[in-house]
Amino acid sequence: MTTPQIHIFNNPLVDVNKLPIELVERKGAGHPDTIVDSLGTVISSLYSKYTLQNLDGIAHHNIDKTVISGGHSNPRFGGGSIIRPVQVEFVGRAVREVIEDNHEILTSIPVHQFAKKASKMVFETHIPRIEYEFRTDHIKRGSNDLVTNFAKEQEMPRANDTSFATAWAPLSNLEQLILDIDSFIQDSYRRKNPFVGSDVKVMGRRFNGETIINVAAAFIDQPLENANDYIRERDRLKSTISERFNIPATHLFLNTADKDDEGSFYLTVTGSSLEQGDDGSTGRGNRIMGVIAPFRPQSLEATAGKNPNAHVGNIYNIWAAIIAQNIYEETSIANNVAIVSTIGKPITECDVFISTSEEADRTICQRIVNEVAQDYLNITRKIIDCSFDMYPFNLIPDF
Amino acid sequence: MTTPQIHIFNNPLVDVNKLPIELVERKGAGHPDTIVDSLGTVISSLYSKYTLQNLDGIAHHNIDKTVISGGHSNPRFGGGSIIRPVQVEFVGRAVREVIEDNHEILTSIPVHQFAKKASKMVFETHIPRIEYEFRTDHIKRGSNDLVTNFAKEQEMPRANDTSFATAWAPLSNLEQLILDIDSFIQDSYRRKNPFVGSDVKVMGRRFNGETIINVAAAFIDQPLENANDYIRERDRLKSTISERFNIPATHLFLNTADKDDEGSFYLTVTGSSLEQGDDGSTGRGNRIMGVIAPFRPQSLEATAGKNPNAHVGNIYNIWAAIIAQNIYEETSIANNVAIVSTIGKPITECDVFISTSEEADRTICQRIVNEVAQDYLNITRKIIDCSFDMYPFNLIPDF
Amino acid sequence: MTTPQIHIFNNPLVDVNKLPIELVERKGAGHPDTIVDSLGTVISSLYSKYTLQNLDGIAHHNIDKTVISGGHSNPRFGGGSIIRPVQVEFVGRAVREVIEDNHEILTSIPVHQFAKKASKMVFETHIPRIEYEFRTDHIKRGSNDLVTNFAKEQEMPRANDTSFATAWAPLSNLEQLILDIDSFIQDSYRRKNPFVGSDVKVMGRRFNGETIINVAAAFIDQPLENANDYIRERDRLKSTISERFNIPATHLFLNTADKDDEGSFYLTVTGSSLEQGDDGSTGRGNRIMGVIAPFRPQSLEATAGKNPNAHVGNIYNIWAAIIAQNIYEETSIANNVAIVSTIGKPITECDVFISTSEEADRTICQRIVNEVAQDYLNITRKIIDCSFDMYPFNLIPDF
Amino acid sequence: MTTPQIHIFNNPLVDVNKLPIELVERKGAGHPDTIVDSLGTVISSLYSKYTLQNLDGIAHHNIDKTVISGGHSNPRFGGGSIIRPVQVEFVGRAVREVIEDNHEILTSIPVHQFAKKASKMVFETHIPRIEYEFRTDHIKRGSNDLVTNFAKEQEMPRANDTSFATAWAPLSNLEQLILDIDSFIQDSYRRKNPFVGSDVKVMGRRFNGETIINVAAAFIDQPLENANDYIRERDRLKSTISERFNIPATHLFLNTADKDDEGSFYLTVTGSSLEQGDDGSTGRGNRIMGVIAPFRPQSLEATAGKNPNAHVGNIYNIWAAIIAQNIYEETSIANNVAIVSTIGKPITECDVFISTSEEADRTICQRIVNEVAQDYLNITRKIIDCSFDMYPFNLIPDF
Repeated sequence: MTTPQIHIFNNPLVDVNKLPIELVERKGAGHPDTIVDSLGTVISSLYSKYTLQNLDGIAHHNIDKTVISGGHSNPRFGGGSIIRPVQVEFVGRAVREVIEDNHEILTSIPVHQFAKKASKMVFETHIPRIEYEFRTDHIKRGSNDLVTNFAKEQEMPRANDTSFATAWAPLSNLEQLILDIDSFIQDSYRRKNPFVGSDVKVMGRRFNGETIINVAAAFIDQPLENANDYIRERDRLKSTISERFNIPATHLFLNTADKDDEGSFYLTVTGSSLEQGDDGSTGRGNRIMGVIAPFRPQSLEATAGKNPNAHVGNIYNIWAAIIAQNIYEETSIANNVAIVSTIGKPITECDVFISTSEEADRTICQRIVNEVAQDYLNITRKIIDCSFDMYPFNLIPDF
Repeated sequence: MTTPQIHIFNNPLVDVNKLPIELVERKGAGHPDTIVDSLGTVISSLYSKYTLQNLDGIAHHNIDKTVISGGHSNPRFGGGSIIRPVQVEFVGRAVREVIEDNHEILTSIPVHQFAKKASKMVFETHIPRIEYEFRTDHIKRGSNDLVTNFAKEQEMPRANDTSFATAWAPLSNLEQLILDIDSFIQDSYRRKNPFVGSDVKVMGRRFNGETIINVAAAFIDQPLENANDYIRERDRLKSTISERFNIPATHLFLNTADKDDEGSFYLTVTGSSLEQGDDGSTGRGNRIMGVIAPFRPQSLEATAGKNPNAHVGNIYNIWAAIIAQNIYEETSIANNVAIVSTIGKPITECDVFISTSEEADRTICQRIVNEVAQDYLNITRKIIDCSFDMYPFNLIPDF
Repeated sequence: MTTPQIHIFNNPLVDVNKLPIELVERKGAGHPDTIVDSLGTVISSLYSKYTLQNLDGIAHHNIDKTVISGGHSNPRFGGGSIIRPVQVEFVGRAVREVIEDNHEILTSIPVHQFAKKASKMVFETHIPRIEYEFRTDHIKRGSNDLVTNFAKEQEMPRANDTSFATAWAPLSNLEQLILDIDSFIQDSYRRKNPFVGSDVKVMGRRFNGETIINVAAAFIDQPLENANDYIRERDRLKSTISERFNIPATHLFLNTADKDDEGSFYLTVTGSSLEQGDDGSTGRGNRIMGVIAPFRPQSLEATAGKNPNAHVGNIYNIWAAIIAQNIYEETSIANNVAIVSTIGKPITECDVFISTSEEADRTICQRIVNEVAQDYLNITRKIIDCSFDMYPFNLIPDF
Repeated sequence: MTTPQIHIFNNPLVDVNKLPIELVERKGAGHPDTIVDSLGTVISSLYSKYTLQNLDGIAHHNIDKTVISGGHSNPRFGGGSIIRPVQVEFVGRAVREVIEDNHEILTSIPVHQFAKKASKMVFETHIPRIEYEFRTDHIKRGSNDLVTNFAKEQEMPRANDTSFATAWAPLSNLEQLILDIDSFIQDSYRRKNPFVGSDVKVMGRRFNGETIINVAAAFIDQPLENANDYIRERDRLKSTISERFNIPATHLFLNTADKDDEGSFYLTVTGSSLEQGDDGSTGRGNRIMGVIAPFRPQSLEATAGKNPNAHVGNIYNIWAAIIAQNIYEETSIANNVAIVSTIGKPITECDVFISTSEEADRTICQRIVNEVAQDYLNITRKIIDCSFDMYPFNLIPDF
């Protein structure tokens, strides 16, 4: 097996805590862009599992351009209603029929059922009150060469594109804070306070030692009787976050677009802006580390929906995250990892660029990289099982 | 008028030429992600012009989730054919009817015509042989508060979201090279060699002083008689680039997924992979500076399709680019600029973070920032006119 | 209350048994055109029930242009598979939001949920193995005047169109035979022979005293092991029908498009041609009497999906059927009934044309017509409850 | 060549002028159901011409379930506007790729271009002010056996279904009157009075020697300044029809749903109700003779969009019309003709049922029928050329 070629560079500012400025954003589980990424992750997982079982390999698929067109609703204190459903357009490529040499269809792959199951799972988990329709028309077959051939599991996959992926470790203080605030609201606060929705967006900016946090949290209309209820609960959520995370009230903003005197609030029927006024597009949300962090090296590749066997836009993001994490755990050195593929080459024949905040041991790094590359089958299996803790979509229950 | 608050930091590595590693990617005019961004840019421009003329202000719109589902084709040397058209789903939000207090429709905004005109313009310019269908179903109305209110031109717009934008100046050597290669192929080589399509993707990686360039260029079948023609012309294009840009043949790769012995080539009917096998999604392509550069601060905001009046995801990208450029021109100091908005505040009341490769004069920076902010109306007009040279979509002819 | 004006004419050939020629066709429950009519009937029923309960009247709706685009399948003896789902486009008009004078939405009508429920009910009942997607985009609001106004239940509805409806009694011998054959296969034979699908089409032609029956019955692949199974069961079904209905084998044809020697059979995965190769369109199937009978007066109005309150294309078909039946029961005289409306007039202010095979008592006819007209509220309720035995969609279980 | 088997019956009431009751309806060129039929006719014609030229035979197609979902508009005296476009969903089956034995695509058939051309032609001819979108997703491939095989032109086609078609001659007095009124408005009055649209619907009822005519004619807003203009012109149109066709004003109704005192009129932007409030579905409009006549034998088969080579639902309607007309011309005997096919048999091997108002000469009838059957190739060519005068879509200009 070929091994990746590594390139190590030292750069103290890889530890972004040392940068005088930092911006970090997290789109929570019910945010349109996170929902659509979750749909892509789950449909790819179902597709991969099915073809592994039935075809002895992961068939070509790349359902990574899915879009959700938001609906139309009428939120009202005490309980509003949905007027028009959300519409999911699954977009991408997938083999749906495997043809034998004699023109006969050997087997078909029930992509439609995966779409149905993925939609049900994602919406019921994160926005159970939503109404939705979905279409799989735009999941089309790939170009000729890709459709007919797909690697058997025992063969080394080849990179399907020339592209790159990036990740880092550890999370900066601000990144951790942003993730913690979202996690606190999603996992803990919402359980006791059912008027808070899953569409939470947290943004932090740090400069000159000062940190300012903006939170936008969709409230749900049914449990709230009137505007006073809303205002009281919004203020209580703010003070709860302020206390728990030790953020001065002057530096914490929650639902700042509200206009209390005009009765204009961030009120929804379902807890997500998808119900009205917003849409979601694959690959526009959180990067592999769970946040959007512009001062970090960021790939624009959408992970969600891509073939976890051969699509480097998916697997290299995961590889990079594991490598960065393992280097940090072993050496305590902050680092960024970027992996670059060449189309058509074995996926283990890649370039790995490692930027470190301090001088790092090349042998250790090469070993860690090699271990990850050698473990590729296992990693792909874990991606298919959605079992990475670090995965941005870790809020999806097992399925 | 409130003025932006600026924050300046010094960081030598802002000049990425000094970084030991660099990755840069450029998706050319006919690449699916560039095509879909162009559609968004043009439809927003048409919408803005119309509402400025007829409604005395730019009505709310945000058509920035558009997706193109690729078609199905049968490329053949000497001339293949299109089997299924490309399908454009325009996705986003826009006011289509302005309602008066008495329930009467004051006026309607012909969004459908803008979509038709934008499609015609973009496809005819960049992929004239394509067949396409489009739909505007998914351009829906916004949430209530946004639909009814939009700023008159004489009023200062307010930020429609809490978000950030980033840009830089100057381009690094590699960024410039990547843009030059694409530009050479698009603007010069294609004119004389009609078998080269507009779907060109150029990727460069630099490490240890070595630079490797990968080019993927879709060839058009009709003017090529057979595989020998293709191979000869592919090799000629490679040697032309190699000579012109002084890249050793060993470091330049062109259409590396070709398998000459199997007769598998990057051959198309139209010159774009949109015709078959690939899809395009807004905001997944080049950033504001015309490239994807993961070691630069990169916003994930899609510029294309967003309201150039109030949507900071659009205008702050432009502002940042102008500010960075002006600082560089005046001081010769490389710099990154990030601008952060707060939803609901006047667009000129923002934070501007400037990272400089050397100590920069604060007064000059503040002046430059203020000038840009004060010039906001004029800049918005220029965005609407698509008249920025730096604009990633500068290949669209005037309209 | 105004009463209908009746016009009676005598014409011996109204008893079509006396005509030397007759053609009759019945599309069974799983035929694409019957399925789509069932969808319309059920969605209208759900809509009507909901608005009656919540808005004190049946809101305007007219979802009578629905179309089903068939799927793609791979039938195989022993069990084939579905490759692409069936796609339902609900098409028509319906009030989705009731607006108050102050622009506020008073209530919304969850049309999407009705579509979901109707699809589930119809497909699970008749083609449980099918995969389907549906869309409600094309259920749009009506023209302005119709949207805002709809009759409260206590008000007499006004005809929404100038149109006519027709029906007759009794069924001719051939009509009865055709219905009985379909009913026997659907209700009895299929229960014991699960390889017969619900997409049965029966056509009869009578001339010179001779009757020829053509049956097309979709077989289901899973329970059949091979072609011999199919041929044996097809022949057994034929001989069963032949014996039961006393049709000479020479005059009965079953699945005549089969080519046994080429292995080409009417084999499906689901029991309906909707899965592949055929589409369904509202109003193209059985008329109100359960058959298509070109030598009968036939309205082209689609009953399915139309507002049962005010849409004469729906209710007059039912009225005509009841009137014809009641006249026949009371007088034993065969008759055709045609009812003509004028847009905007009360629905009871209509013209009723009665053609009778013998001289009929005008007083009796007028009384019967008046009774039906006076009973209009009750009839509409029965339409909403789908509780007419004669209803072509009587195979839908209660819901 | 096999010849059709004829069956002749005598029935005086075949001359419906003698029936005491008659209903006739005509949907004009711009009526939604006529527009959608025209689309089907033209797309089939373009498809047939192309495959005849390129494949030496008419490839299988059956695009006969097309539906148009109407748009949304804002009519205003002096000039209103279109808010949402009309959406055409082409629905049906067609071969798009012809595959050779070695899996290679031999040729593709540009169905999308036919749809584009048909839409342009039909809308520009009949509703030039309309905005429209169209989709061809729902034109899918047929079932396996039908896709791969299609008759070469020199081979006798075989019936693709067991079905029947009907026609008659001559037109009754009322049928002729209804057609003349529509024709007068469409071809003559509209030319001088551009405020009258092409969506004209004419309905006549005759009983007891009395004839009542209802006309619904969409008016166009732009040329009319105000309600007075509309009322004056509506009344002038009514009196013009009344005088020209000698219909007492008491028996002629025009736009009876208008409520002058409420300012509610049949006013449109485009001259067709398709722009708002109405939809169109193939096969729901005029029958082959140009009208809907429930007391005539009527087939429910949609002619529009069906393969004119082998689809008896299309060609037998035409054959029946020619046969009826030729019999009438030669014998002056009113007659109905019904033709019944059997799936899989040569199209000339069919049953022809002729009902005559008087005793007709069997030899003449058989000869006429034989001539038509022998002329089948020529008739199909004429259908493809849309060159029958009697064709309901005779208002489409040559193309």
